[in-house]
Amino acid sequence: MSLLEDLKWRYATKKMNGTPVSQEKIDYIIEAARLAPTSSGLHPYKVIEISNPELKAKIQPVAYGQSQIVDSSHLLIFAAYDEYTKDRVDAPFAQQAEERGLPAGFADDYKNNLFANISKQTKEQHFNHAARQAYIGFGLALAAAAEQKVDATPMEGFVNAQLDELLELDKLGLKSVTILALGYRDEENDWLVNLKKVRPNHEDFIIKLK
Amino acid sequence: MSLLEDLKWRYATKKMNGTPVSQEKIDYIIEAARLAPTSSGLHPYKVIEISNPELKAKIQPVAYGQSQIVDSSHLLIFAAYDEYTKDRVDAPFAQQAEERGLPAGFADDYKNNLFANISKQTKEQHFNHAARQAYIGFGLALAAAAEQKVDATPMEGFVNAQLDELLELDKLGLKSVTILALGYRDEENDWLVNLKKVRPNHEDFIIKLK
Repeated sequence: MSLLEDLKWRYATKKMNGTPVSQEKIDYIIEAARLAPTSSGLHPYKVIEISNPELKAKIQPVAYGQSQIVDSSHLLIFAAYDEYTKDRVDAPFAQQAEERGLPAGFADDYKNNLFANISKQTKEQHFNHAARQAYIGFGLALAAAAEQKVDATPMEGFVNAQLDELLELDKLGLKSVTILALGYRDEENDWLVNLKKVRPNHEDFIIKLK
Repeated sequence: MSLLEDLKWRYATKKMNGTPVSQEKIDYIIEAARLAPTSSGLHPYKVIEISNPELKAKIQPVAYGQSQIVDSSHLLIFAAYDEYTKDRVDAPFAQQAEERGLPAGFADDYKNNLFANISKQTKEQHFNHAARQAYIGFGLALAAAAEQKVDATPMEGFVNAQLDELLELDKLGLKSVTILALGYRDEENDWLVNLKKVRPNHEDFIIKLK
């Protein structure tokens, strides 16, 4: 199937049936996010993988009791850097130099300019920028799940600060941005499964400038 | 090819050769963004399609002179809502009711609750939320381009306010967030084409919580 066919197949699954997703497929889905591009290659977010039923049960009330949290096989929590520090900017450039066999300072001008700009911004601006990058990977993970015929629910409906506290994300310098619940649809009990996918009309979505 | 193979094939093309991309492929790439999921189905962004060389030439200085702006075949500018208004929240629910044959007020409780929450937020918060949604579609457009073997450069390196002014996006209630330049790589003159793709190590990117 093509990507467009995969995207038509998928939907925001409202009721999952509890069937486990193989670790191989979970790894594949996360790999799509790992391969995602990010601004200046900073990759300023992590994916937190959770399958433990007890931990999912603790998360459910933070997500307004939504059933996918516990009926899913795995939760992937996308969590972005709470700020850009010098170390966090230096590290990917050092890795690039090493893996590409380039001299250590190969991109110092670019990096120093980048860090000078970042230094003028607030922590909130850092986080907003990092969160956007996480959404690219989130989109690619969604596409990978659809390709693998794994159902997925993209979820913003949770109290971020409470989830961060529960998972102690502040200790990792991270803040949650979104959840991808992965599992298999419960066809008989999902009210959304047979409803038409609704998207903006082509002509409303695209603006062609001459 | 699988999605992961497509993602390994793609790279942030630094030098394009000016060859046009067929309109069929451009439409396919934009369709991936149109099919992308968004928070509460609001789809709070548009894709602006530009192929006119004169307009691209005007955009180039706003993007620090980067060559892909003019050597690409098309630019897709992802532009998010500058704020959520009542009309912008109402419209997708009305469309859902119509296309799904549901009564007009089918989701009024959900929608009113959503709008009550949105009303407590600043315009800046609205835009930040809308911009994140745009990045999901941006990620899917990137994947679609790779599947179609169209090269693409994801670009944040431009002065957003200047681009908004040039394209008069304020009249549309939009603010630019990112650009996807589409075209074909100039293999002989692209310094990045043969360098290894560098991403965070698997074990650094994934946090498995038990």
